[in-house]
This record gives sequence, C-alpha cells and structure tokens, in this order.
Amino acid sequence: MAKEVTKRSDNYSQWYNDLVVKADLAEQSAVRGCMVIKPYGYAIWEKMQSVLDGMFKEKGVQNAYFPLFIPKSFFSREAEHVAGFAKECAVVTHHRLMNDPEGKGVVVDPDAKLEEELIVRPTSETIIWSTYKNWVTSWRDLPILCNQWCNVVRWEMRTRLFLRTAEFLWQEGHTAHATAQEAEDMAKQMVHVYADFARNCLALPVIVGHKSPNERFAGALDTLTIEAMMQDGKALQAGTSHFLGQNFAKSFDVQFTGKDGKQEYVWATSWGVSTRLMGALIMAHGDDNGLVLPPALAPIQVVMVPIYKSDDERNAILDKMYEVKKALEAMGHSVKVDDRDTLRPGFKFAEWELKGVPVRLAMGPRDLQNGTVEVHRRDTLEKNTVGIEGLEKYIDELLGDIQKGIYEKALAFRTANIRKCDDWEEFKTEIQKGGFLLCHWDGTAETEQKIKDETKATIRCIPVDSCVCEEEGKCIYSGKPSSRRVVFAISY
Amino acid sequence: MAKEVTKRSDNYSQWYNDLVVKADLAEQSAVRGCMVIKPYGYAIWEKMQSVLDGMFKEKGVQNAYFPLFIPKSFFSREAEHVAGFAKECAVVTHHRLMNDPEGKGVVVDPDAKLEEELIVRPTSETIIWSTYKNWVTSWRDLPILCNQWCNVVRWEMRTRLFLRTAEFLWQEGHTAHATAQEAEDMAKQMVHVYADFARNCLALPVIVGHKSPNERFAGALDTLTIEAMMQDGKALQAGTSHFLGQNFAKSFDVQFTGKDGKQEYVWATSWGVSTRLMGALIMAHGDDNGLVLPPALAPIQVVMVPIYKSDDERNAILDKMYEVKKALEAMGHSVKVDDRDTLRPGFKFAEWELKGVPVRLAMGPRDLQNGTVEVHRRDTLEKNTVGIEGLEKYIDELLGDIQKGIYEKALAFRTANIRKCDDWEEFKTEIQKGGFLLCHWDGTAETEQKIKDETKATIRCIPVDSCVCEEEGKCIYSGKPSSRRVVFAISY
Repeated sequence: MAKEVTKRSDNYSQWYNDLVVKADLAEQSAVRGCMVIKPYGYAIWEKMQSVLDGMFKEKGVQNAYFPLFIPKSFFSREAEHVAGFAKECAVVTHHRLMNDPEGKGVVVDPDAKLEEELIVRPTSETIIWSTYKNWVTSWRDLPILCNQWCNVVRWEMRTRLFLRTAEFLWQEGHTAHATAQEAEDMAKQMVHVYADFARNCLALPVIVGHKSPNERFAGALDTLTIEAMMQDGKALQAGTSHFLGQNFAKSFDVQFTGKDGKQEYVWATSWGVSTRLMGALIMAHGDDNGLVLPPALAPIQVVMVPIYKSDDERNAILDKMYEVKKALEAMGHSVKVDDRDTLRPGFKFAEWELKGVPVRLAMGPRDLQNGTVEVHRRDTLEKNTVGIEGLEKYIDELLGDIQKGIYEKALAFRTANIRKCDDWEEFKTEIQKGGFLLCHWDGTAETEQKIKDETKATIRCIPVDSCVCEEEGKCIYSGKPSSRRVVFAISY
Repeated sequence: MAKEVTKRSDNYSQWYNDLVVKADLAEQSAVRGCMVIKPYGYAIWEKMQSVLDGMFKEKGVQNAYFPLFIPKSFFSREAEHVAGFAKECAVVTHHRLMNDPEGKGVVVDPDAKLEEELIVRPTSETIIWSTYKNWVTSWRDLPILCNQWCNVVRWEMRTRLFLRTAEFLWQEGHTAHATAQEAEDMAKQMVHVYADFARNCLALPVIVGHKSPNERFAGALDTLTIEAMMQDGKALQAGTSHFLGQNFAKSFDVQFTGKDGKQEYVWATSWGVSTRLMGALIMAHGDDNGLVLPPALAPIQVVMVPIYKSDDERNAILDKMYEVKKALEAMGHSVKVDDRDTLRPGFKFAEWELKGVPVRLAMGPRDLQNGTVEVHRRDTLEKNTVGIEGLEKYIDELLGDIQKGIYEKALAFRTANIRKCDDWEEFKTEIQKGGFLLCHWDGTAETEQKIKDETKATIRCIPVDSCVCEEEGKCIYSGKPSSRRVVFAISY
C-alpha cells in the first residue's frame, strides 16, 4: 500500500497529491475545485479547531455567525477590497428552479431573478461591519471580539487539495476597537497566537513578520503573517492577521462616541487560518512512507497490531492490548487496536505508516511470553523492544519526544535552507533551488514586482522574529540603501 | 430592560421576536431571510453541538465535510427530491464580477457564466451519494457513518429568526448500509438520540413518531420525527431521521458486492437537527421576564451580583464572590461575576433574567456579615437566603433541580394540552385553541389533506412512544376504521 506513494525526490507535487488521497484525508468532489474532506482528514482539522478555539477564548474572543451571502453593493464600498475579490467569486442570481418546459430535467426559473445579486462570502469584513454598525454607539460597546468558523468561496482557477480550493473551511476573527493602538496590538497578539499554535501543535517552525504593501490583504493597512518552509524549500503562508485601520468603519459608517464625547470611526482587525494548514502539515513533515503526524494533532496517537497464528494467541494478545489501551486512554491518549483479522500485519503496518500514526505497538506470542512489546516510532522509523511493565509512562514520554522531534527536524531543515544573499546573479540561481533568501530590499513596490517578474520569488515577510535581519546594506536588485533584510522565497 | 418584552398573553409571536433580539441571541441581517447569530445565542448553539457531537461519536459516527455547491443535474436524479427542494434554492450562475462599464460600482461579468449552474445545498443527499459511489465496492466498505456540521440554504419566502431562515446551521448525518434492516435500525437509533438529547439537555418533552407519507422528507421511505409542544399549544418539529431505502443509491448508482458475491444497491439513512432547536428552547421555556435556560445549555449557569455602597464593601463582597466562583468552576459550572460598576443591581437582575441565567446570587454588606447569600432561581423566580458554608454543593444540586424542574413544567403543560378527540365538529373548534389532539385517521393522504385544508392542522406524527395510541376506532373525518390514534396539531 505505502509503495504506491510517489517518492518526494521523483515528483514532490505528485507525492503530495498521493498522500492526501491515499491517506484518506480528502478528495476532489464532483464540483470543480471543491473538495470532500474525508473523516480521517476532518478529524485532524477538528483537533486544530479545538486547540485554536480554546486559545481564542482565552483572549476573550467569542464565536458568532454571520450570513453566507453578501449583497453585491457591499462589495463596492471598500475600493481595494472589491478589487481584491471581485474576480474570483460565486454569484447567486436566482432563487428557484423549474421543470424544463422542453422536458430536460430542471432549469433556472427566469422569473426568480434576484433584485440584487448575492456573493458567496470570500471573507466577511463587509457583512460583519454592516452588522457592527448596529452594535456600536459608545466607547462602552467596544471592543467587540468576534470569531466565526465557517466555509468561504474564492473561485480559484487552478486548485489543489487543501492548498487552494474554491471552497475552504476557516476561522475569521473580526474585532472592533476604540483606538488604533488597541487594534494594532490585537492584530499582533493574534499573529502570535497563530505562531504558538503552529510551533506547539503543528510542530511547524514559522517566521512571524509583516507583509510588504504589495502582498497585503485587500483593504488592510498592515498584514502580519506566519510563513513556513515546506520540504521542497518553498514557502507556505500559514495564517495572517490584519490591521484594517478605519477603512471598513468608514465604508459602513461605524462611529462611536468616545469618553470625550467626540464621534470617531472604529478601528478594526481581522485574522484567519484555514484548511490550508492541513497542506502545511502534510508537506512539512511527511516522508516517502506517508504522513508524519505530530501527536498533538493525530486522531490516533497509538495503534496496536497483534501478530498471531492461532485463535488462542489472537485472543490472549488482544486481551493484553485492550488492557494497555485502557491505561493509555486514562492518560488522555487516543488508541486504536487494529483487530481486523482479514489483513496481514505487514499490510496494517504500511497502512498506519501511510496515515502517520505516531506510535505503533506490535505484539506476538513471544512478546506475550516475555512481557514485551515492539514499539515503532513513525517519525524516525526506529523500533525498540520494551517491557510491558511501565509501558504507559514510556509511551507518554515518547509521544512528547516525537512532538518535539518533528519540530526539531523541521527547524533543522529550515535552518539549512535559509541563507543571506547579496548578489543579484547569485539570487537568480539560488532562489530556484528552493529555500529562503535573506536579502536587502529598497522598500519599493516597483523593485518587489521586478524581482517577482524575473524570478517568481516574492517577499514572504519582513520578519519580526526568528531571524536577525536589522542591518545596513544595499538592495539586492536596485543597489539602493536598506536598513534590514527581508525573506524572499518562491511560495505556494 | 425586561419591561420591554411583550407579554406572552398579549402577543405570543411578538414576545418570541422580542426575546430573540433583546436577549442578544440573533438578529436580522442585511441579507433577506438570513440571520446573524450573536455571541450569546451562538454560545448556546455551541453547547448543543458539543453534546450532540459526543452522542454521535459514541454511536460510531465520524464527521466529514462535503461541498457547499451541488451541480444542478444532481438534483434532477431523484424525482421526489428535486420536487421538494427546487422551488426554494439559491442558484449560482456566474463566477466573476467586473467594473460596471457605466461606472456604477460592480456588475456580474457576463463572460463568467458557469457551464452548469450550482445550487447552494439545501441538504446534501445528492452530493454525498455521488461521493459514496467512490467509497463503496464491497460489503467490507459498509457501513459508512458520516455526519457534517454546516450551513444550508432554503429560499423561504416567510422567515422568522431561528424557526425558518433562508440560511441555517445544522448537522446532517448520512449513513450507508448493506441491508434494509440495518438502515432502518440506524434511522430509529438516531431519532432516539435526538429524543434523549431533547429531553435531557433541552428539557423538552418530545413525542417520537413516524411522519405520515404526506409529511415525509422528499425522497424518504419513512421519516421519524421528534415533536415538541410550544407554550401557545402549537407543535414544533425538532428533529427528523429518514430511512431512504435505496432511492439515492439507485439515483447515483451506488452498488456493493455482498458476501454472497451478488451486486446490490446500498441502503441509506439521513438525519438532522438545526438552529431551529434554538427556537424550540426559547418558546418552550421562556416567560414574560425573558429566557429560561436549562442549566445543561446555559452559557452562564450562575451569575453573581454584588450590592454595595462604598468601595470597601464592593471589594470585600467581590473577593468573596471570586472565591465562590472558583469553587463552582472547579465543579464544572460556568459562573460570571457581574462587577460592572456603572449599572445598578436592579438593572443587572433584569438583564440576567432576560438572558435566562438559571441561578442568580446576590450579596450585600449584611449578607457578608452573616455569611449568607441570596439565591434566586430563574425558572420559578423563588428567592432563598442560604449560608455561604456548603454553598457550592447547594448550587450544584439546585442546578440539577432546575434542569429537572424545567422539564417537568413543560411536561405538565403538554399533558394538560393533549387530549383525545373523536368528533369532527369538536375537532374544528378544539384545534384552534392549540394543543395536540389524539385522533383516529383512516390512513389516507386525501383525508389528511382535507383536514389540513379545513383547519390548517397536520398530522405531526404517528407516535411510537410518549402516548398510548393503539386502539380500534373510526377516522375522525371519514369515519372509516382505524387501528390507532395519531397526533394532530397546528405547527410552526
């Protein structure tokens, strides 16, 4: 089974597609660009949701729900926003079907045309700020800290499972504040929530930084991002947090009376992560045998495979396994005993490796006799024979080691593939090899665009942590003075 | 604040609308028929989700996610299904906007017309069964037990917050089985999960039964339902579970090879509950002061209001309250100390009554001195002075009593408003007074339709529990023989 997965070195892109489909994470649906998230993939997404949701609530954020549809006219109110999203949206124009007068199934009823077309939300700033207008009169009504978990639609022409789909699942936080400072602090706080989550749960070393003006969210004054490196050296934007200034408040006329009695427009942030994180997880840690899941997000943390010939052996081993399972579950771990008797152990081993289960325990008649079990660690593929006595504690620590080990490995990979570059000719060849290049940039959109046109590389971020970048130098392209390096890479 | 709520006796319908809006549960959005679910309302929905999701998982059901859009042609494949949903659906016809050539904002780009229109899912049988086709080849692939939490759209012409909205949130379970028996058992099992949930969490006495053929889900062979009685005596369908036979398997050609080597079509169920449950919760238990929330679903179970004149008093009382809060939270209860010092206690009392918080604790300087606290119970409005010593245990038990009390009250109301009726003239006047009438029915769709035309009453269900209905008699309308009574009511 695992043999069917393309090797990374043969075709990284095909390897990714193989993993998504063969590990039962997701598949293409009958609707162009829309995916079906299968139970195993959805269980990972649910774990992500649960951890993030808890982190948001700790910051005082509350969940709410806003409409799927946005009136077309709302879109036009914020000029940059409409420019950013109008070219890739699903438009609802009618509200009824009817029997085809010519007898060919059903057709759209021309009499059921909407007065104003509705856009399926690509993001909800406009509908939310039209709502906040009713919620805010005085400084006492602020801040508003809302988040919603929902689906959004962006009509992408080229789609890839999890990474870029027409419909995807995400959370979008939308906050309203009395001062610019408070909103900027909120945007910063949330990008660091994302960074903590990426590092501690996804085992993903990320660089936190600002986007360059070219790469900002449509309508934002500042966009903060977390950028991760995939195993092919490309960058993946894993989450963003925007300081929106008063743009949306002005577009939807959301004002409040301050403590000083004066009317002022409200300050805004928005921030989101999506099912794209699933793509990051797969591409950052997977190997040629399949997924490698960090224990913090693995739907099954420990799988047990019995090895037997007779029914007696099977029963005795399974009894022991259910005992161990119970003990591990009591410690909060999720455990599966693979008791299917139509499949051979080797097949099961390959299947659970493909699915990235962090720890596999195998037990045969001799193990049972000796009071031992074979422990296989997915991330390093190491095997060890361990005594049943004290096994729970051993596994508990092992899961912690694996979580840490996966992060360390990804960090080492990133460290090996991030380097300074100060020569334009060198840049052009180096950037094609993958990895991040730390370069000086003159701060202009023109230079950024020219570099992109010539190499496909973009400024992933102007880092605020993870690399020391503040030093004097000259722009790698224009030679003009620069006071800090930025991260260039080719990205997903 | 609470005074602004219309009395139930004055205008039940307005009372309901007042409660939804003034208790901060939901509001109308800028999009016709679509609601905004506000944080307080959403927190209740999250509690419902969490409990139900746990109950589903105990039954072996896994969550997954299927596309928002359904190709128009899929709709036509199941004849009854398309008839049931085609008249009220949102149709996506284009995938791009463009700047208006005449300079008036943005317009739909006529060049971006979809080859085939997409329907925003009103329910997902068709897209899911088109997916299951790829998942099933052999009996080994069955059963499939999937559920999804998502939004759906039905273009209702007359909408009411929570009860009937163009977009609503729900869960839809879709299962696939090798035998008819297994599928029928699954449909039964799930309606009983809903009934348990309604009774134990929502404190809602429901009647479980079959829908008459007229009222079945479009495409089902059998629909099971839970029916609740609201305080105006009307019925509210709170959840349904369908045995779909092989209809969708045949429409999407989903066959499997049985153990005997023969090809057979797969058997199906689907089942769902929605944000409509929020409406049931409000209408079943609320009173003229506002919401009455069962503790099992209350986002805040205990609210504490300090009563003081001086800052010293305030500090001393709040210190004590935070102590109590900590102890109650350690027992798993959610507690809020209302320490806002810009509002008077009376205002706070009214606000938390409006929001239905089950228990309110008030403490003044004399209480502090005496080691007592005033305990107010939302459901009965009873007040008691209780010693601080052992308070946690008292509150813990009180919350249990309230949960039970709310159910008992609703059950007593239903019992008082459910009666047998054997005379058609009597039926016509009695049914207008509200309540459920247990009547004989000849089993024909014609009779059912005539009764509906003359009185607006429908058969809510043919009960399988909650009332003894099996007895010989004559149809209340046609006089033809009948072997059991059914439940008639006017419904939401």
